[in-house]
Amino acid sequence: MELFKEIKDELKIVERELHAVVQSPDPLMTQTSSHLLKAGGKRMRPAFSLLAGKCANFSFEQVLPLAVALELIHMATLVHDDVVDCSSTRRGTKTVRAIWGNKLSVHIGSYLFSKSLSLISKYESPFVNRILADTSVRMCIGEIEQISNPFDIQKTVKDYFFTIYRKTALLISASCQLGAFVCGAPKQMYESLRRYGHNIGMAFQITDDVLDLVADEKLLGKPKGSDLRQGIITLPVIYALKNSPKRDKLKDMVLRQNNGYEPEEAVRLVKECGGIDFSGQIVHRYITRARNELSALPNFHSKSALASVADFIGTRRF
Amino acid sequence: MELFKEIKDELKIVERELHAVVQSPDPLMTQTSSHLLKAGGKRMRPAFSLLAGKCANFSFEQVLPLAVALELIHMATLVHDDVVDCSSTRRGTKTVRAIWGNKLSVHIGSYLFSKSLSLISKYESPFVNRILADTSVRMCIGEIEQISNPFDIQKTVKDYFFTIYRKTALLISASCQLGAFVCGAPKQMYESLRRYGHNIGMAFQITDDVLDLVADEKLLGKPKGSDLRQGIITLPVIYALKNSPKRDKLKDMVLRQNNGYEPEEAVRLVKECGGIDFSGQIVHRYITRARNELSALPNFHSKSALASVADFIGTRRF
Repeated sequence: MELFKEIKDELKIVERELHAVVQSPDPLMTQTSSHLLKAGGKRMRPAFSLLAGKCANFSFEQVLPLAVALELIHMATLVHDDVVDCSSTRRGTKTVRAIWGNKLSVHIGSYLFSKSLSLISKYESPFVNRILADTSVRMCIGEIEQISNPFDIQKTVKDYFFTIYRKTALLISASCQLGAFVCGAPKQMYESLRRYGHNIGMAFQITDDVLDLVADEKLLGKPKGSDLRQGIITLPVIYALKNSPKRDKLKDMVLRQNNGYEPEEAVRLVKECGGIDFSGQIVHRYITRARNELSALPNFHSKSALASVADFIGTRRF
Repeated sequence: MELFKEIKDELKIVERELHAVVQSPDPLMTQTSSHLLKAGGKRMRPAFSLLAGKCANFSFEQVLPLAVALELIHMATLVHDDVVDCSSTRRGTKTVRAIWGNKLSVHIGSYLFSKSLSLISKYESPFVNRILADTSVRMCIGEIEQISNPFDIQKTVKDYFFTIYRKTALLISASCQLGAFVCGAPKQMYESLRRYGHNIGMAFQITDDVLDLVADEKLLGKPKGSDLRQGIITLPVIYALKNSPKRDKLKDMVLRQNNGYEPEEAVRLVKECGGIDFSGQIVHRYITRARNELSALPNFHSKSALASVADFIGTRRF
């Protein structure tokens, strides 16, 4: 990705390490656990840890295990999410569960997560351990919150923020914080980067939720409107359920999910009342906050890269 | 349990802590994650960590987070196993997945596991972190091995030992090792206890697999012969598939699983050729090894308790 050109070489090594880490004497183990890896992905969490590390006394050797572990944690949640959501495609290819079934996927997800712990344990750092343990607990809480009340048309913006904070922002936030920490950044710096990551993560997830409604399916790599089908009520829909003049019709559609209407109809109502624009404004607010965190930091080489990432997250179309 | 009377008071506090740890502001979270807890269980892993700690400079405060974490790790695997095995009952009550479905169960399993990491991170001990991370990786490998080749009538005793070592013995082994370690035991001592735990764990799982074929269903808390139904080939069956004069008939039954015969018929063939007796001899061998590890240790108060546990594991009927 052009955006991460400053760390292009390091990301290539992260990629190689990711593939190396999931090699196993058992061919099925290697095949299943590297399947999702091969489908690609932005490697955003490793990238953030590298860029944050570059704000401090950067040592690639020092960040590498963290960068790999962060992507493994993310992949573990994706494999488990695909089981939970019964998803058949992800990143344009078949999911692990679609090929090898739910049973294997549950264990492969746990395996990838455990592998990340092995890498993390090498730091012998109580702080890194604690942050990632707490992040994992709260990520699970976010996932559980999301699925425990499907089709909840009473959901508030606050509920939504609570969920996406845990589901997405926390790990991105930890990536920035720990990338700087393992390179010896002072507390003030890694805390600023943690907050930068938090704001970026929130903006990223809101954009993701908007794109689920409006993006080109080919660029998206999965069917459009899948959140609505699963009863996941996202920010643009929450806005529309409150503000659309046709909110009763929309409520009815959301509750009937995919039954008797096309998601396109619901998307049209959300768009018409400004739900997409409203979400864009919120994204913009988070991006501004992220940039402000950067401005408080001393000038360093990767600062402009982190600023560009913020701008990209705010405007991405896939 | 009479067997653990020496640590009865400590186990009560472990129990209380387990319930406290899964309390959450969200009632559904508390309900689901404490459901399995309420169904009871032997709390074997906490008990081993306590007894092993008593071989060293015992401090209950020091062992408590470990004891709770070990049971949480075990519970996490049970919740995930029930998803994988589509089990409806465990410990005589409905499983989490039977009540709340597979989706929630996947996340609840991960949540319990992550909670254990939070507890473990409090030790700020690279050794404890590394042992539990490696144990988790290998436990996943064991689970994946077990389900990736179901109905494999070519399975050898060696394959079986590989699987149960990872699936069961490793965590019991780590419970003994780390219980002693966190109480400041010297390396020689915690390594002996690790080997004790390994042998106990192997004996325990073989007995479990025998009981799945021959135990009283009420004591077992789940339907008899469930391994055979799922295509899990255990030691007595491996023996019989090689040594029974009616092995062709047995092969046919195993491959047809629950289709057109009752597990009782297969169990009869396994019994007739001595598959149960053979497994009993192997259990006895592991128990002897476990006791030998103890005899090499200095005399301490809980040594006799650990010896009694060994004897119990070797003779238990439920």
